[in-house]
Amino acid sequence: MQILEKDIKLQFRQLRELLNKRHTKQFRKRFLDMHFYEQGQFFLTLNHDQRQLLYQIMDPDEMGDMFDTLEDDQLDMSQILAEMDLKYASQVLNSMYDDNAADFLEHLDKSEVDRYLSLMPQADANQLRGLLHYDTQTAGGLMTTDYVVMYQDLTVKEALDLLRKYARTAETIYYLYVIDADNDLVGTLSLRELFVHNQKAILSTIMTRNVISVFVDDDQEAVAQVFRDYEFVALPVVDHAHKLMGIVTVDDVIEVIDDEAQDDYSKLAGVDVDESKSTPVKAASSRLPWLITLLFLGMITATLISHFENLLSQASILAVFISLITGTAGNAGTQSLAVAVRRLSLTNNKPRHLLMLLLKELITGLIIGLVTGLTILVVVGLWKKNFVLGAVIGLAMMVAITVANLAGSLIPMLMAKIGFDPAVASGPFISTLSDLTSVLIYFNIASLFMGFFTGL
Amino acid sequence: MQILEKDIKLQFRQLRELLNKRHTKQFRKRFLDMHFYEQGQFFLTLNHDQRQLLYQIMDPDEMGDMFDTLEDDQLDMSQILAEMDLKYASQVLNSMYDDNAADFLEHLDKSEVDRYLSLMPQADANQLRGLLHYDTQTAGGLMTTDYVVMYQDLTVKEALDLLRKYARTAETIYYLYVIDADNDLVGTLSLRELFVHNQKAILSTIMTRNVISVFVDDDQEAVAQVFRDYEFVALPVVDHAHKLMGIVTVDDVIEVIDDEAQDDYSKLAGVDVDESKSTPVKAASSRLPWLITLLFLGMITATLISHFENLLSQASILAVFISLITGTAGNAGTQSLAVAVRRLSLTNNKPRHLLMLLLKELITGLIIGLVTGLTILVVVGLWKKNFVLGAVIGLAMMVAITVANLAGSLIPMLMAKIGFDPAVASGPFISTLSDLTSVLIYFNIASLFMGFFTGL
Repeated sequence: MQILEKDIKLQFRQLRELLNKRHTKQFRKRFLDMHFYEQGQFFLTLNHDQRQLLYQIMDPDEMGDMFDTLEDDQLDMSQILAEMDLKYASQVLNSMYDDNAADFLEHLDKSEVDRYLSLMPQADANQLRGLLHYDTQTAGGLMTTDYVVMYQDLTVKEALDLLRKYARTAETIYYLYVIDADNDLVGTLSLRELFVHNQKAILSTIMTRNVISVFVDDDQEAVAQVFRDYEFVALPVVDHAHKLMGIVTVDDVIEVIDDEAQDDYSKLAGVDVDESKSTPVKAASSRLPWLITLLFLGMITATLISHFENLLSQASILAVFISLITGTAGNAGTQSLAVAVRRLSLTNNKPRHLLMLLLKELITGLIIGLVTGLTILVVVGLWKKNFVLGAVIGLAMMVAITVANLAGSLIPMLMAKIGFDPAVASGPFISTLSDLTSVLIYFNIASLFMGFFTGL
Repeated sequence: MQILEKDIKLQFRQLRELLNKRHTKQFRKRFLDMHFYEQGQFFLTLNHDQRQLLYQIMDPDEMGDMFDTLEDDQLDMSQILAEMDLKYASQVLNSMYDDNAADFLEHLDKSEVDRYLSLMPQADANQLRGLLHYDTQTAGGLMTTDYVVMYQDLTVKEALDLLRKYARTAETIYYLYVIDADNDLVGTLSLRELFVHNQKAILSTIMTRNVISVFVDDDQEAVAQVFRDYEFVALPVVDHAHKLMGIVTVDDVIEVIDDEAQDDYSKLAGVDVDESKSTPVKAASSRLPWLITLLFLGMITATLISHFENLLSQASILAVFISLITGTAGNAGTQSLAVAVRRLSLTNNKPRHLLMLLLKELITGLIIGLVTGLTILVVVGLWKKNFVLGAVIGLAMMVAITVANLAGSLIPMLMAKIGFDPAVASGPFISTLSDLTSVLIYFNIASLFMGFFTGL
């Protein structure tokens, strides 16, 4: 990439100096020359006094463009807005794209929200208030109402002229949404299509009637999937009466895809991986609940082994292979878990052909178990010069792996079936659970061959 | 979503019937009414004979639009192209966006590629051949050369007229790239900006001069990061002399983000999670290498325990807690691994403040170890009515967790430092490795207190 981090840091330092020295004109020029994203990153480096200077120098509209690039987890917007003049803050919010403004307002108290909205034009305030109703994880929570909509009886030329007017406020002018006299969404057109058609053509004759849209209460993951498949830059959102409610743009979807991926990754490891800013104490307290829960699950395994203490004291060789069997079965279970969770997320959590998938995983597990079991039979047989011991370890390994593999597949599927997020079954959970089943399998098999070990 | 899967299946069945019955006109109308993505999905349901009928009915350009929506892992393009008339195949490839055509051609033999390219206009063939040189995981491998470029001395009106011409072939007309007389990239303009400016304005006076671009050999992950930050829909790609080589569009970046996320997820579980179409034998053979490797690492742990068999035969109670300690330490290690890998991927694999991060993880590990250790001290103490045993298990647990935590952090960082992908250190690897260290810690601590256990 061509923006070197060193350059950016230097540039930010120089800008802060201009700000501190109140070289207003120079500062404004250099600040406005930066991309909105860079302006936002610069803003995050300022202290309270410097921010106050910035509010004096810059218009609320200019601040709005900048805040559009910042996420609600990067700054405490409640505090930022509170340090502004009330009218200025309200203008900043009003000049932002309303989906971004709504994301910030969601973190504020109702009374604060009312204070800012009361200073906005009624129509804008109502639109924002409308957006605040939707669950943030749905199409409604992602959409903006700053889109371009036109009646189907306009000509291409009229549409292009109107687009010119919309160009300053709409979040995207590259798709326009065509409605009939009842305000029902009946078609879409891209700016590119407007460009290649005769200026006199009527929109209804050239628009795409096969409109792909999402419902306002569709989950954000489903919305992201439509973007992936159709390669759209924007997508209309409708209510269940097919009235157009807003549009989702691709930049918000990239964020969703990132968040969902991070979420799946976190769950697989049984930890929230987004710890970038947390202290060791906070990191520890976010990781401990899972660990302690699994510790008690592990205690059941320990209790189980405890029942075989008599066997163990007679054949201490058995203890040598506990961690090998539990560890390998846990690894195999983690693999099959990850495959199952991924498959479920691709089919939108609706497990189909459940039995066939389980049968497939059973066979996979048997093959893996057989190969691993035979390997360990030979290795242990040669090492301890005892192929009966090798056979017991190998057999236990095979059964333990097959069971762990099946559990890794079955548990997320069952979770999806009863309406839970399958990714909640984490790798650590599956391996701790498979410790239990593996130990049970191992000692029961070993008990059968007890005569061979005692005194080894 | 408003397209129900049942509807699509029904529609596809009806379309296949029209095709089989050679109702050409009806078929063409309904086929062309579908979105390109749906056409592509329909194509994937056809058999060889039906595909042959399709090639007779549809123009190569229409097929090209459809193939633009298909990925190289969804079909064997070499076989598909071979079943077409040679000239038709070459026209299909030529009508596709050249980044997509290049993705398909990459899987073909050189002689096949030459055969298709020889039938294209020289300039198009050269452009495609150029794209084939780049590593698929870089900006060059993602970019298209179907973009809009203009000289800086044009007026807005001239630019808009030119855009109209480009609208049929360019992959996006929503950004245009401005060059000087030396063909150096000097600015960018969005179609939206052209719209709001006076028609007589000169491009050089209104363009954005602060151009964000990526180098042709930049890694695709870095490219995706720029899209995330700046919320662009397209991004210019330049060589190291700052000549414009192509552009990357957001649809390709969504794919990259998806692929990278799947890759990280796969690596964390030590398995390629994309097994959707594979048989149990294939699934097993892709999962076994890791499992067998880790099995041998686990054998070292077993050998280690074997050295303590004497201790074990005198104090079989020690065997009861092996899996509890290795399991819990493994879980903690997996958590810290996932956090570290994620952090490294966010900072583009350059671990900064290495020592500070490790210190932080050490403290986190100590806190987690202390809490977990104390918990197990009390639980085991009460259960076995032996607080010395509890203290030994608790102490071993604490040290084992601290070490596993540190290893989970340190190993991916070291991998990044020596230029490896940190995500290669998988969860199963870290937990198998921590089995080893945990056992070592546990038995050494237990040995110190041996007098207390013998005969328990």
